[in-house]
Amino acid sequence: MRELIEHVFLPAFDSAALSARHDGAVVRLGGASLAFTTDTYVVHPRFFPGGDIGKLSVYGTVNDLAMTGARPAYLSAGFIVEEGLPIGELQQIALSMRAAADACGVEFVTGDTKVVDRGKGDGLFINTAGIGLVPEGVAIAPRRVRPGDAVLVSGDVGRHGIAVLSVREALAFEEPVESDCAPVAELAAALISSGIDVHCLRDPTRGGLAAVLNEIALDAGVHVEVEEAQIPMEPAVLGACELLGLDPLYVACEGRLVAFLPEAQTERALASLRDHPLGRGAARIGRIAGEGKGSVVLRTRLGTRRTLDLLSGEQLPRIC
Amino acid sequence: MRELIEHVFLPAFDSAALSARHDGAVVRLGGASLAFTTDTYVVHPRFFPGGDIGKLSVYGTVNDLAMTGARPAYLSAGFIVEEGLPIGELQQIALSMRAAADACGVEFVTGDTKVVDRGKGDGLFINTAGIGLVPEGVAIAPRRVRPGDAVLVSGDVGRHGIAVLSVREALAFEEPVESDCAPVAELAAALISSGIDVHCLRDPTRGGLAAVLNEIALDAGVHVEVEEAQIPMEPAVLGACELLGLDPLYVACEGRLVAFLPEAQTERALASLRDHPLGRGAARIGRIAGEGKGSVVLRTRLGTRRTLDLLSGEQLPRIC
Repeated sequence: MRELIEHVFLPAFDSAALSARHDGAVVRLGGASLAFTTDTYVVHPRFFPGGDIGKLSVYGTVNDLAMTGARPAYLSAGFIVEEGLPIGELQQIALSMRAAADACGVEFVTGDTKVVDRGKGDGLFINTAGIGLVPEGVAIAPRRVRPGDAVLVSGDVGRHGIAVLSVREALAFEEPVESDCAPVAELAAALISSGIDVHCLRDPTRGGLAAVLNEIALDAGVHVEVEEAQIPMEPAVLGACELLGLDPLYVACEGRLVAFLPEAQTERALASLRDHPLGRGAARIGRIAGEGKGSVVLRTRLGTRRTLDLLSGEQLPRIC
Repeated sequence: MRELIEHVFLPAFDSAALSARHDGAVVRLGGASLAFTTDTYVVHPRFFPGGDIGKLSVYGTVNDLAMTGARPAYLSAGFIVEEGLPIGELQQIALSMRAAADACGVEFVTGDTKVVDRGKGDGLFINTAGIGLVPEGVAIAPRRVRPGDAVLVSGDVGRHGIAVLSVREALAFEEPVESDCAPVAELAAALISSGIDVHCLRDPTRGGLAAVLNEIALDAGVHVEVEEAQIPMEPAVLGACELLGLDPLYVACEGRLVAFLPEAQTERALASLRDHPLGRGAARIGRIAGEGKGSVVLRTRLGTRRTLDLLSGEQLPRIC
């Protein structure tokens, strides 16, 4: 995917906003700083423990806006419906989108629907784009990450990917794993408004925590070190990953954020995150150890050091 | 489609912006009026005389923004790629999008790509969302259309649908029909900035001119009368429609606008439109004849009167 972006899309669409390598663009329009982002959701199956494609399509895009420092405001919805999708299911998903939008104070204001023949789609694909307002003075960006920053995560990782996989593969784990699918906009807003100098925020979706750390390491030109023992993970997720031969650090979350901020503000930031129900499990997991060429190293529980590479392919396709 | 919107999406997503029934939403953010719109493009085939899915995905969304009175500014792109799509074709389409964006002064600032298995898509679907700035004082909306308004169209109708159909069905017409696929933002901006009191603008895409007239008639609560002899149509389009048993008034355009404005300003508006290469063929095609319940009547060349109904199905699927 990164290669497709590097070789096909970036050469065609090079722009200052894209080269900032945010999850969303920050642009000036009408005298204000706006965040603008888009995501297409093709998750299979459409319903999974803890969520559905509709809820995911709201929180995913709201979270991308929040990761730029913006307050999410308005969403668009673009549906591609394969002929034969039951109307009742579409209604259920639309209502799930509405409930999710209400839960995080955003509004759907425009939409579009296309119907394709049977066999030319897969039930339902949803695109949501979103816009939000970036408060004056907020400057959150990958290039602001620097040596001395601490790396925080707002809760346990890997749940979303495992939850989707469990239904897709009809796996019965002893303890069922629920997706963490949730909006992190309030967590981000609380961090920012508490005066913490947040350098960068990122939600660890596709590619999981390892992908986020690699992207930031590359884009900021730094070396990242994280401690396996500090990374929150549920035993059920760990168990499922062992069974399936997956590395949980590469498994998607949909309700977590990773924050990069000055080491000295770690405790205040953790307190701010833990003050919110969705940030109870927040932890400091590592630090920016120095300038670098984009390397990420994990210190394992055994004390050994392991490089966390960018995967060349997608470990789990269609989980979002 | 209208029923799907009425029964599934509007009940779930009711909002003031949606109930304005624009092609795009107009919202307040950061102290300014912004237009925000989305469209998904599933046109089949992806290349057609006069354009391709990439060019269409830019102009279609730019035109929707322009129809709210906004100056289009930024676009997002969401790709759903079916496994097996040649990378070279994707590159060609991305470059076509970039060229189209450059041609109308908008910029792609954010994007997303998802890959689905072979057989779960149809080569390529593209969503573009767009944002633009609505100048202060501009108030363009279906509800502003009133008895006494003239109805203008910026050029000949029906070309896009016929162009797509000609390649899809491998039809060889004596005269090949090229899509009218083009941006109408400059036409709209010229009308507005010349001080004409434009009540409403609409681009006659899916469902063609007849659908636009019906939508406006319903949403504004008026009765519309149009004159067949005044509606610009290319002989090649008319010939193709006769051959295929299609009514050209229901065939999509992708580079035309329909304007509703005070009768007394008709000549000035026509002059403004014709001053631009894309508006050379502009014509006054009818008027808002009175209050009403959404009826649209065509006076035919023979002098008879025919009701232009909303079609219950899509005459031509996947033309955009």
